[in-house]
Amino acid sequence: MLRDLVLKTRSYRRFRQDADVSTTTLHQLIDLARCSASAANLQPLKYAIANDPATNARIFRHLRWAAYLKEWTGPAEGERPSAYIIVLGDMHISQAIGPDHGIAAQSILLGATEIGLGGCMIASLNREALREEFSLPEWLEILIVIALGKPAETVALETVGPGGDIRYWRDEKGVHHVPKRRLEDILIQL
Amino acid sequence: MLRDLVLKTRSYRRFRQDADVSTTTLHQLIDLARCSASAANLQPLKYAIANDPATNARIFRHLRWAAYLKEWTGPAEGERPSAYIIVLGDMHISQAIGPDHGIAAQSILLGATEIGLGGCMIASLNREALREEFSLPEWLEILIVIALGKPAETVALETVGPGGDIRYWRDEKGVHHVPKRRLEDILIQL
Repeated sequence: MLRDLVLKTRSYRRFRQDADVSTTTLHQLIDLARCSASAANLQPLKYAIANDPATNARIFRHLRWAAYLKEWTGPAEGERPSAYIIVLGDMHISQAIGPDHGIAAQSILLGATEIGLGGCMIASLNREALREEFSLPEWLEILIVIALGKPAETVALETVGPGGDIRYWRDEKGVHHVPKRRLEDILIQL
Repeated sequence: MLRDLVLKTRSYRRFRQDADVSTTTLHQLIDLARCSASAANLQPLKYAIANDPATNARIFRHLRWAAYLKEWTGPAEGERPSAYIIVLGDMHISQAIGPDHGIAAQSILLGATEIGLGGCMIASLNREALREEFSLPEWLEILIVIALGKPAETVALETVGPGGDIRYWRDEKGVHHVPKRRLEDILIQL
Protein backbone atom coordinates (compact mmCIF):
# COMPACT_ATOMS: atom_id res chain seq x y z
CA MET A 1 0.00 0.00 0.00
CA LEU A 2 1.32 3.41 -0.97
CA ARG A 3 -0.16 4.81 2.24
CA ASP A 4 2.18 2.65 4.33
CA LEU A 5 5.12 3.85 2.27
CA VAL A 6 4.07 7.50 2.63
CA LEU A 7 3.68 7.11 6.39
CA LYS A 8 7.12 5.53 6.66
CA THR A 9 8.69 8.25 4.52
CA ARG A 10 9.53 10.69 7.27
CA SER A 11 12.30 13.30 7.31
CA TYR A 12 15.27 11.61 8.98
CA ARG A 13 18.26 13.62 10.10
CA ARG A 14 20.34 11.03 11.98
CA PHE A 15 21.79 7.99 10.27
CA ARG A 16 24.09 5.02 10.62
CA GLN A 17 26.85 6.82 8.80
CA ASP A 18 28.83 3.62 8.17
CA ALA A 19 25.99 2.07 6.12
CA ASP A 20 26.98 2.66 2.51
CA VAL A 21 24.56 3.79 -0.18
CA SER A 22 25.87 2.63 -3.54
CA THR A 23 26.08 4.67 -6.71
CA THR A 24 23.79 2.12 -8.35
CA THR A 25 21.18 2.72 -5.67
CA LEU A 26 21.42 6.48 -6.14
CA HIS A 27 21.03 6.08 -9.89
CA GLN A 28 17.98 3.86 -9.39
CA LEU A 29 16.40 6.49 -7.16
CA ILE A 30 17.15 9.26 -9.65
CA ASP A 31 15.63 7.09 -12.35
CA LEU A 32 12.34 7.12 -10.42
CA ALA A 33 12.47 10.92 -10.58
CA ARG A 34 13.41 10.80 -14.25
CA CYS A 35 10.25 8.79 -15.00
CA SER A 36 8.00 11.13 -12.99
CA ALA A 37 5.99 14.08 -14.27
CA SER A 38 7.61 17.33 -15.36
CA ALA A 39 5.83 20.58 -16.23
CA ALA A 40 5.42 20.72 -20.04
CA ASN A 41 7.69 17.64 -20.01
CA LEU A 42 10.66 20.01 -20.17
CA GLN A 43 12.66 17.95 -17.63
CA PRO A 44 14.95 20.76 -16.49
CA LEU A 45 16.24 18.84 -13.46
CA LYS A 46 19.78 17.59 -13.18
CA TYR A 47 21.25 15.51 -10.36
CA ALA A 48 24.67 15.37 -8.73
CA ILE A 49 25.43 12.57 -6.29
CA ALA A 50 27.90 12.00 -3.49
CA ASN A 51 28.45 8.85 -1.43
CA ASP A 52 32.07 8.91 -0.30
CA PRO A 53 33.17 10.42 3.03
CA ALA A 54 35.29 13.20 1.57
CA THR A 55 32.64 14.52 -0.84
CA ASN A 56 29.90 14.05 1.76
CA ALA A 57 31.85 16.24 4.18
CA ARG A 58 32.20 18.95 1.53
CA ILE A 59 28.39 19.01 1.15
CA PHE A 60 27.51 18.61 4.82
CA ARG A 61 29.22 21.80 5.94
CA HIS A 62 26.90 23.95 3.82
CA LEU A 63 23.63 22.48 5.09
CA ARG A 64 21.41 23.84 7.84
CA TRP A 65 19.64 21.33 10.02
CA ALA A 66 16.27 21.32 11.78
CA ALA A 67 15.68 25.01 12.44
CA TYR A 68 13.16 24.30 15.22
CA LEU A 69 15.64 22.28 17.30
CA LYS A 70 17.47 25.26 18.77
CA GLU A 71 19.93 23.23 20.80
CA TRP A 72 20.89 20.83 18.03
CA THR A 73 23.13 22.05 15.23
CA GLY A 74 22.92 18.91 13.13
CA PRO A 75 23.97 15.27 13.12
CA ALA A 76 27.27 14.46 14.83
CA GLU A 77 30.09 12.62 13.13
CA GLY A 78 28.97 8.98 12.97
CA GLU A 79 25.30 9.81 12.45
CA ARG A 80 25.59 11.87 9.29
CA PRO A 81 24.08 10.97 5.91
CA SER A 82 25.89 8.35 3.84
CA ALA A 83 24.91 9.95 0.56
CA TYR A 84 23.45 13.02 -1.07
CA ILE A 85 21.55 13.87 -4.21
CA ILE A 86 21.83 17.53 -5.14
CA VAL A 87 18.81 18.49 -7.24
CA LEU A 88 19.69 21.17 -9.75
CA GLY A 89 17.62 23.19 -12.20
CA ASP A 90 19.10 23.59 -15.67
CA MET A 91 18.29 27.21 -16.44
CA HIS A 92 19.14 26.72 -20.09
CA ILE A 93 16.04 24.51 -20.24
CA SER A 94 13.70 26.34 -17.90
CA GLN A 95 13.87 29.19 -15.43
CA ALA A 96 10.58 28.28 -13.78
CA ILE A 97 10.91 24.91 -12.09
CA GLY A 98 7.37 24.91 -10.67
CA PRO A 99 6.46 21.64 -8.97
CA ASP A 100 9.20 19.59 -10.67
CA HIS A 101 11.74 19.34 -7.85
CA GLY A 102 9.03 18.42 -5.35
CA ILE A 103 7.71 15.68 -7.62
CA ALA A 104 11.24 14.35 -8.14
CA ALA A 105 12.18 14.51 -4.47
CA GLN A 106 9.05 12.67 -3.39
CA SER A 107 9.69 9.87 -5.90
CA ILE A 108 13.26 9.60 -4.60
CA LEU A 109 12.30 9.59 -0.92
CA LEU A 110 9.51 7.04 -1.39
CA GLY A 111 11.93 4.86 -3.34
CA ALA A 112 14.49 5.20 -0.56
CA THR A 113 11.97 4.10 2.06
CA GLU A 114 11.07 1.04 0.03
CA ILE A 115 14.68 -0.22 0.19
CA GLY A 116 15.16 0.51 3.88
CA LEU A 117 16.77 3.91 3.51
CA GLY A 118 15.51 7.29 4.57
CA GLY A 119 16.44 10.88 4.24
CA CYS A 120 15.57 14.51 4.31
CA MET A 121 14.89 17.12 1.65
CA ILE A 122 17.00 20.07 2.66
CA ALA A 123 16.04 23.45 1.24
CA SER A 124 17.85 25.45 3.90
CA LEU A 125 21.49 25.61 2.92
CA ASN A 126 24.20 28.01 1.89
CA ARG A 127 23.70 27.77 -1.86
CA GLU A 128 26.48 30.14 -2.84
CA ALA A 129 29.02 28.33 -0.68
CA LEU A 130 27.93 24.95 -2.08
CA ARG A 131 28.20 26.34 -5.60
CA GLU A 132 31.73 27.55 -4.93
CA GLU A 133 32.70 24.30 -3.19
CA PHE A 134 32.15 22.34 -6.40
CA SER A 135 32.53 25.16 -8.95
CA LEU A 136 28.98 24.59 -10.14
CA PRO A 137 28.18 26.83 -13.12
CA GLU A 138 25.65 29.63 -12.77
CA TRP A 139 23.19 27.97 -15.18
CA LEU A 140 22.62 25.21 -12.64
CA GLU A 141 20.28 26.46 -9.94
CA ILE A 142 20.70 24.62 -6.64
CA LEU A 143 17.14 23.65 -5.71
CA ILE A 144 17.39 21.20 -2.82
CA VAL A 145 19.79 18.69 -1.38
CA ILE A 146 18.44 15.26 -0.49
CA ALA A 147 20.35 13.63 2.36
CA LEU A 148 20.15 9.83 2.40
CA GLY A 149 21.20 7.00 4.63
CA LYS A 150 20.12 4.29 6.99
CA PRO A 151 17.92 6.10 9.53
CA ALA A 152 19.04 5.95 13.15
CA GLU A 153 16.19 7.80 14.79
CA THR A 154 12.46 7.38 15.38
CA VAL A 155 10.09 9.92 13.88
CA ALA A 156 6.52 10.07 15.13
CA LEU A 157 3.78 11.60 12.99
CA GLU A 158 1.22 13.37 15.15
CA THR A 159 -1.75 15.69 14.94
CA VAL A 160 -1.24 19.37 15.53
CA GLY A 161 -2.49 20.48 18.94
CA PRO A 162 -5.21 23.03 19.67
CA GLY A 163 -2.62 25.83 19.69
CA GLY A 164 -1.81 25.06 16.06
CA ASP A 165 1.94 24.78 16.63
CA ILE A 166 3.51 22.91 13.70
CA ARG A 167 7.09 22.95 15.00
CA TYR A 168 8.62 19.51 15.27
CA TRP A 169 10.36 18.71 18.54
CA ARG A 170 12.52 16.01 20.08
CA ASP A 171 11.70 14.35 23.38
CA GLU A 172 14.10 13.25 26.08
CA LYS A 173 14.37 9.81 24.49
CA GLY A 174 15.43 11.35 21.20
CA VAL A 175 12.15 10.64 19.41
CA HIS A 176 11.41 13.30 16.81
CA HIS A 177 7.74 14.41 16.87
CA VAL A 178 6.13 15.98 13.81
CA PRO A 179 2.72 17.66 14.18
CA LYS A 180 0.63 17.59 11.01
CA ARG A 181 -2.44 19.72 10.41
CA ARG A 182 -5.72 17.78 10.38
CA LEU A 183 -7.39 16.92 7.09
CA GLU A 184 -10.45 19.01 7.96
CA ASP A 185 -8.23 22.03 8.49
CA ILE A 186 -6.66 21.91 5.04
CA LEU A 187 -9.85 21.45 3.00
CA ILE A 188 -11.38 24.53 1.37
CA GLN A 189 -15.02 24.48 0.29
CA LEU A 190 -15.60 25.77 -3.23
CA MET B 1 7.33 -2.10 -6.30
CA LEU B 2 7.28 1.69 -6.30
CA ARG B 3 8.99 1.66 -9.70
CA ASP B 4 5.98 -0.04 -11.28
CA LEU B 5 3.69 2.53 -9.72
CA VAL B 6 5.87 5.42 -10.92
CA LEU B 7 5.96 3.99 -14.44
CA LYS B 8 2.16 3.63 -14.47
CA THR B 9 1.70 7.16 -13.13
CA ARG B 10 1.58 8.97 -16.44
CA SER B 11 -0.15 12.24 -17.26
CA TYR B 12 -3.58 11.28 -18.57
CA ARG B 13 -5.78 13.84 -20.31
CA ARG B 14 -8.69 11.70 -21.56
CA PHE B 15 -10.97 9.84 -19.21
CA ARG B 16 -14.15 7.83 -18.91
CA GLN B 17 -16.08 10.84 -17.72
CA ASP B 18 -19.00 8.74 -16.39
CA ALA B 19 -16.74 6.90 -13.89
CA ASP B 20 -17.32 8.66 -10.60
CA VAL B 21 -14.53 9.56 -8.17
CA SER B 22 -16.01 9.77 -4.70
CA THR B 23 -15.40 12.48 -2.15
CA THR B 24 -14.02 9.80 0.19
CA THR B 25 -11.48 8.83 -2.45
CA LEU B 26 -10.42 12.44 -2.94
CA HIS B 27 -10.02 12.89 0.80
CA GLN B 28 -7.91 9.72 1.01
CA LEU B 29 -5.64 11.03 -1.74
CA ILE B 30 -5.32 14.42 -0.06
CA ASP B 31 -4.49 12.62 3.16
CA LEU B 32 -1.46 11.08 1.43
CA ALA B 33 -0.32 14.61 0.63
CA ARG B 34 -1.08 15.73 4.18
CA CYS B 35 1.26 13.04 5.54
CA SER B 36 4.06 13.92 3.12
CA ALA B 37 6.99 16.25 3.70
CA SER B 38 6.59 20.02 3.88
CA ALA B 39 9.38 22.61 3.98
CA ALA B 40 9.99 23.55 7.63
CA ASN B 41 6.83 21.50 8.27
CA LEU B 42 4.82 24.68 7.70
CA GLN B 43 2.14 22.84 5.70
CA PRO B 44 0.86 25.86 3.79
CA LEU B 45 -1.11 23.79 1.27
CA LYS B 46 -4.88 23.77 1.16
CA TYR B 47 -7.07 21.66 -1.11
CA ALA B 48 -10.41 22.25 -2.80
CA ILE B 49 -12.16 19.36 -4.50
CA ALA B 50 -14.81 18.95 -7.16
CA ASN B 51 -16.45 15.77 -8.40
CA ASP B 52 -19.89 16.75 -9.68
CA PRO B 53 -20.58 17.64 -13.32
CA ALA B 54 -21.58 21.25 -12.68
CA THR B 55 -18.54 22.17 -10.56
CA ASN B 56 -16.25 20.17 -12.83
CA ALA B 57 -17.44 22.22 -15.81
CA ARG B 58 -16.75 25.44 -13.95
CA ILE B 59 -13.14 24.33 -13.42
CA PHE B 60 -12.59 22.75 -16.83
CA ARG B 61 -13.20 25.94 -18.79
CA HIS B 62 -10.21 27.65 -17.18
CA LEU B 63 -7.67 24.91 -17.89
CA ARG B 64 -5.26 24.73 -20.81
CA TRP B 65 -4.51 21.31 -22.21
CA ALA B 66 -1.42 19.73 -23.76
CA ALA B 67 0.33 22.73 -25.30
CA TYR B 68 2.34 20.55 -27.69
CA LEU B 69 -0.76 19.03 -29.31
CA LYS B 70 -1.56 21.97 -31.55
CA GLU B 71 -4.65 20.45 -33.13
CA TRP B 72 -6.23 19.28 -29.89
CA THR B 73 -7.81 21.83 -27.60
CA GLY B 74 -8.55 19.43 -24.74
CA PRO B 75 -10.74 16.47 -23.89
CA ALA B 76 -14.19 16.40 -25.48
CA GLU B 77 -17.40 16.10 -23.49
CA GLY B 78 -17.54 12.46 -22.37
CA GLU B 79 -13.78 12.12 -21.92
CA ARG B 80 -13.24 14.89 -19.40
CA PRO B 81 -11.96 14.40 -15.84
CA SER B 82 -14.46 13.14 -13.24
CA ALA B 83 -12.85 15.10 -10.43
CA TYR B 84 -10.39 17.80 -9.56
CA ILE B 85 -8.17 18.72 -6.66
CA ILE B 86 -7.18 22.38 -6.68
CA VAL B 87 -3.92 22.77 -4.76
CA LEU B 88 -3.75 26.13 -3.03
CA GLY B 89 -1.03 27.90 -1.08
CA ASP B 90 -2.15 29.62 2.10
CA MET B 91 -0.15 32.84 1.97
CA HIS B 92 -0.96 33.57 5.60
CA ILE B 93 1.24 30.58 6.42
CA SER B 94 3.96 30.88 3.80
CA GLN B 95 4.63 32.91 0.70
CA ALA B 96 7.36 30.57 -0.53
CA ILE B 97 5.86 27.19 -1.35
CA GLY B 98 9.15 25.68 -2.54
CA PRO B 99 8.84 21.96 -3.32
CA ASP B 100 5.64 21.42 -1.30
CA HIS B 101 3.06 21.34 -4.09
CA GLY B 102 5.19 19.00 -6.15
CA ILE B 103 5.62 16.63 -3.21
CA ALA B 104 1.89 16.71 -2.52
CA ALA B 105 0.89 16.26 -6.15
CA GLN B 106 3.18 13.27 -6.60
CA SER B 107 1.76 11.56 -3.51
CA ILE B 108 -1.76 12.17 -4.85
CA LEU B 109 -1.02 10.94 -8.36
CA LEU B 110 0.78 7.80 -7.15
CA GLY B 111 -2.14 7.12 -4.83
CA ALA B 112 -4.57 7.58 -7.72
CA THR B 113 -2.66 5.09 -9.86
CA GLU B 114 -2.75 2.51 -7.10
CA ILE B 115 -6.56 2.52 -7.09
CA GLY B 116 -6.94 2.43 -10.87
CA LEU B 117 -7.32 6.14 -11.43
CA GLY B 118 -5.06 8.55 -13.23
CA GLY B 119 -4.73 12.21 -13.85
CA CYS B 120 -2.70 15.18 -14.79
CA MET B 121 -1.07 18.00 -12.84
CA ILE B 122 -2.12 21.14 -14.66
CA ALA B 123 -0.03 24.24 -14.08
CA SER B 124 -1.17 26.00 -17.23
CA LEU B 125 -4.52 27.61 -16.47
CA ASN B 126 -6.23 30.95 -16.21
CA ARG B 127 -5.68 31.50 -12.50
CA GLU B 128 -7.46 34.82 -12.28
CA ALA B 129 -10.56 33.49 -14.02
CA LEU B 130 -10.59 30.40 -11.77
CA ARG B 131 -10.22 32.63 -8.73
CA GLU B 132 -13.19 34.74 -9.82
CA GLU B 133 -15.26 31.68 -10.73
CA PHE B 134 -15.24 30.51 -7.12
CA SER B 135 -14.57 33.84 -5.37
CA LEU B 136 -11.35 32.43 -3.93
CA PRO B 137 -9.73 34.94 -1.56
CA GLU B 138 -6.43 36.56 -2.48
CA TRP B 139 -4.57 34.85 0.35
CA LEU B 140 -5.05 31.50 -1.38
CA GLU B 141 -2.55 31.20 -4.21
CA ILE B 142 -3.69 28.83 -6.96
CA LEU B 143 -0.70 26.53 -7.47
CA ILE B 144 -1.86 23.65 -9.66
CA VAL B 145 -5.03 21.81 -10.53
CA ILE B 146 -4.94 18.02 -10.47
CA ALA B 147 -7.41 16.47 -12.91
CA LEU B 148 -8.47 12.94 -11.97
CA GLY B 149 -10.52 10.17 -13.47
CA LYS B 150 -10.50 6.73 -15.03
CA PRO B 151 -7.94 7.03 -17.84
CA ALA B 152 -9.19 6.36 -21.37
CA GLU B 153 -5.97 6.67 -23.29
CA THR B 154 -2.64 4.91 -23.60
CA VAL B 155 0.52 6.81 -22.67
CA ALA B 156 3.89 5.44 -23.76
CA LEU B 157 7.06 6.46 -21.96
CA GLU B 158 9.96 6.68 -24.38
CA THR B 159 13.55 7.84 -24.62
CA VAL B 160 14.26 11.21 -26.13
CA GLY B 161 15.68 10.95 -29.66
CA PRO B 162 19.05 12.19 -30.89
CA GLY B 163 17.55 15.60 -31.70
CA GLY B 164 16.67 16.07 -28.04
CA ASP B 165 13.02 16.92 -28.69
CA ILE B 166 11.05 16.47 -25.46
CA ARG B 167 7.62 17.38 -26.88
CA TYR B 168 5.03 14.69 -26.36
CA TRP B 169 2.98 13.70 -29.39
CA ARG B 170 -0.02 11.58 -30.29
CA ASP B 171 0.06 8.99 -33.04
CA GLU B 172 -2.70 8.12 -35.48
CA LYS B 173 -4.03 5.45 -33.11
CA GLY B 174 -4.35 8.04 -30.32
CA VAL B 175 -1.43 6.76 -28.28
CA HIS B 176 0.29 9.57 -26.40
CA HIS B 177 4.09 9.35 -26.58
CA VAL B 178 6.28 11.01 -23.95
CA PRO B 179 10.04 11.31 -24.57
CA LYS B 180 12.11 11.34 -21.39
CA ARG B 181 15.75 12.41 -21.21
CA ARG B 182 18.19 9.56 -20.56
CA LEU B 183 19.62 9.05 -17.10
CA GLU B 184 23.16 9.70 -18.31
CA ASP B 185 22.05 13.06 -19.69
CA ILE B 186 20.68 14.35 -16.40
CA LEU B 187 23.62 13.38 -14.17
CA ILE B 188 26.15 16.07 -13.28
CA GLN B 189 29.61 15.08 -12.07
CA LEU B 190 30.73 16.94 -8.96
